[in-house]
Amino acid sequence: MALIVQKYGGTSMGSPDRIRDVARRVSRWKAKGHQLVVVVSAMSGETNRLLALAKNVSPSPDSRELDVMVSTGEQVSIALLSMALKDIGLKARSYTGAQVKIETDNAYTKARILNIDDANIRADLNNDTVVIVAGFQGIDAHGNITTLGRGGSDTTGVAIAAALNADECQIYTDVDGVYTTDPRIVPEARKLDQITFEEMLEMASLGSKVLQIRSVEFAGKYKVKLRVLSSFEEEGKETQGTLITFEEGRKMEQPIISGIAFNRDEAKLTVLGVPDRPGIAYQILGPIAEANIDVDMIIQNVGNDGTTDFSFTVNRGEYERALNILEQKVKPHVAARAVVGDNKICKVSAVGVGMRSHPGIASQMFRTLAEEGINIQMISTSEIKISVVVDEKYLELAVRVLHKAFGLEQAA
Amino acid sequence: MALIVQKYGGTSMGSPDRIRDVARRVSRWKAKGHQLVVVVSAMSGETNRLLALAKNVSPSPDSRELDVMVSTGEQVSIALLSMALKDIGLKARSYTGAQVKIETDNAYTKARILNIDDANIRADLNNDTVVIVAGFQGIDAHGNITTLGRGGSDTTGVAIAAALNADECQIYTDVDGVYTTDPRIVPEARKLDQITFEEMLEMASLGSKVLQIRSVEFAGKYKVKLRVLSSFEEEGKETQGTLITFEEGRKMEQPIISGIAFNRDEAKLTVLGVPDRPGIAYQILGPIAEANIDVDMIIQNVGNDGTTDFSFTVNRGEYERALNILEQKVKPHVAARAVVGDNKICKVSAVGVGMRSHPGIASQMFRTLAEEGINIQMISTSEIKISVVVDEKYLELAVRVLHKAFGLEQAA
Repeated sequence: MALIVQKYGGTSMGSPDRIRDVARRVSRWKAKGHQLVVVVSAMSGETNRLLALAKNVSPSPDSRELDVMVSTGEQVSIALLSMALKDIGLKARSYTGAQVKIETDNAYTKARILNIDDANIRADLNNDTVVIVAGFQGIDAHGNITTLGRGGSDTTGVAIAAALNADECQIYTDVDGVYTTDPRIVPEARKLDQITFEEMLEMASLGSKVLQIRSVEFAGKYKVKLRVLSSFEEEGKETQGTLITFEEGRKMEQPIISGIAFNRDEAKLTVLGVPDRPGIAYQILGPIAEANIDVDMIIQNVGNDGTTDFSFTVNRGEYERALNILEQKVKPHVAARAVVGDNKICKVSAVGVGMRSHPGIASQMFRTLAEEGINIQMISTSEIKISVVVDEKYLELAVRVLHKAFGLEQAA
Repeated sequence: MALIVQKYGGTSMGSPDRIRDVARRVSRWKAKGHQLVVVVSAMSGETNRLLALAKNVSPSPDSRELDVMVSTGEQVSIALLSMALKDIGLKARSYTGAQVKIETDNAYTKARILNIDDANIRADLNNDTVVIVAGFQGIDAHGNITTLGRGGSDTTGVAIAAALNADECQIYTDVDGVYTTDPRIVPEARKLDQITFEEMLEMASLGSKVLQIRSVEFAGKYKVKLRVLSSFEEEGKETQGTLITFEEGRKMEQPIISGIAFNRDEAKLTVLGVPDRPGIAYQILGPIAEANIDVDMIIQNVGNDGTTDFSFTVNRGEYERALNILEQKVKPHVAARAVVGDNKICKVSAVGVGMRSHPGIASQMFRTLAEEGINIQMISTSEIKISVVVDEKYLELAVRVLHKAFGLEQAA
């Protein structure tokens, strides 16, 4: 008997039929003698419907009230799944974040989980009951409803698995695992049986939509065994999905590169001709941070005329705002020559723990892109990934040629 | 400065525009220096949408989970109204039933309020904040979400007014007050400036849809000053609605009859030729009560052959079920001659505290109906009302002639 936490996303909960499918899947796991906690998202489309309704009432909805509202999507889901489970003869009980309770900080719309009270859940599990928990939500110390931000249901699943010391956290989604890259771009993309946490973290942060990055961080921190699975596989035809492992458990002969990740949702900003003196990076990025704009890559090139060019990337949705800040607050202040930007760029990355011990991966990547005439605008590296910024029009081409160059279509 | 509880129903909260209207109305009351608690229903149609969704997942949804789900309708409303209020510069804060907290018993889908913790609300009111409370919902002693049943938001409003010892509880709806009868049937129907609690109770229980009966009972019990108002009146053109008073405050010269109420939603069942012996009423109605079917009027006529005919009315939706119970469980058991029923009946009632001191009202009512050839099938009376059951096809005619016979079109 194992204690398993399963998480089902919006597509898996997308209709009454799909919800009954989830109930049957849960019941098959229960029939094997396992204890089950099931975390669910709002039905697909529901969160967007609620956000649109809020926008119709208020141009910039108050964030506390937005959380009160948006959290209802998951509340509906837990009730529906519990009903469906009871209909097929299982004991089931739904819990909102407040009922669990999942205590978070007070950062509405992007709260962080501080503590999970496992008393109610454990009592139910010991009473042979399937526990259904609303993902994405919690309450702060004063009883205010909070949400964890988009994709937060993954985080809820992992956090509950950590709190209960569960044997496995299964993230059910509409794909059957983590791929070497997006199969819509590279048909030869291959499903990975396993991937390390570090790689998954890079893949997630680089735009692979399979798992929310915070949930991967959480799983890494609390050593939660995480598995990505499809909720669309038929009974008897289920596969094992992709297991996200700690490196120790991996086989010795692992591929150097595990996958090619990419992110379209990027924009680049450059402050040209800035006097090259200490504190300049802070003077440029300080106002951006104050405006709550997340910065991703940061590059500074030293010129030889005593000035420097300073570039960084932001989420494309923040492009206009960031550009305005640079023009109005930064440029006059730092005496820059000009501010330029480009919101038609993308980021493509090769990810793999193997590159730690294999020099030359970067140059192989650059050569591959050069052979296709793809100009690299920015480069950023970490121990286990190399990212390049290129013109958005080259995205598919770059992903395809890199996938081939690193032999990812062949089984490891 | 007064402490006012306002309640807005689903139609008043029916769209973003309507919600902004409510916000402006609240702000006008606030501008007069009052403290305001606003109780809201789900947006019109939302509760039915949720119930339909539940039915699509489960043929007979679990009642605990149904409450978890349906309570989200009001949760969305409180958030939207709070956003709208903040947009026009007011301090506002939303509360679910659990957050208040409104403690109820454990009778899911028809819970009763046991206690209201007023600490949070009072703190907000003293901090110049408009408090927005979700109607219709609460939590039981174990933190389970409960709902109060259809129309329960009125009850929430009155209960909060009672708990806070509010100066007035204003129920905003889509009509501008309580009428002598339904103006769609009698165009001359007149809005009452005031009506006693007892009368309102009879009007509500007899099918006037303006106020939910439990809220009127609650208001009577806790002496809450209750007023029915329209939320559709434009600024500067608001009327005073109808005040529901305690009798002591009424003027001496009051009309004998305050209104004509009616209810189409009735069905009649008769068990014929039952042996006339003690315990027979219980033997007939016991199985009906066990099936959780509410019985309204009960009439027993003693025959002269040692048998009796026993009639009662039920909600029309329960007609088939009640008929089956009588046929299968009651008839053989009590050795009745036959069971007959009629689901094409209606109930028409004259209501007025004045009839206590004015004999002859009943005979005036019967004569009026007789003159129109309307056959009376059942009669039931209380201190302040006379109800008759007639063929449904006579409903409008009966209401019109009675309205005229009692001079209700003239101002009191």
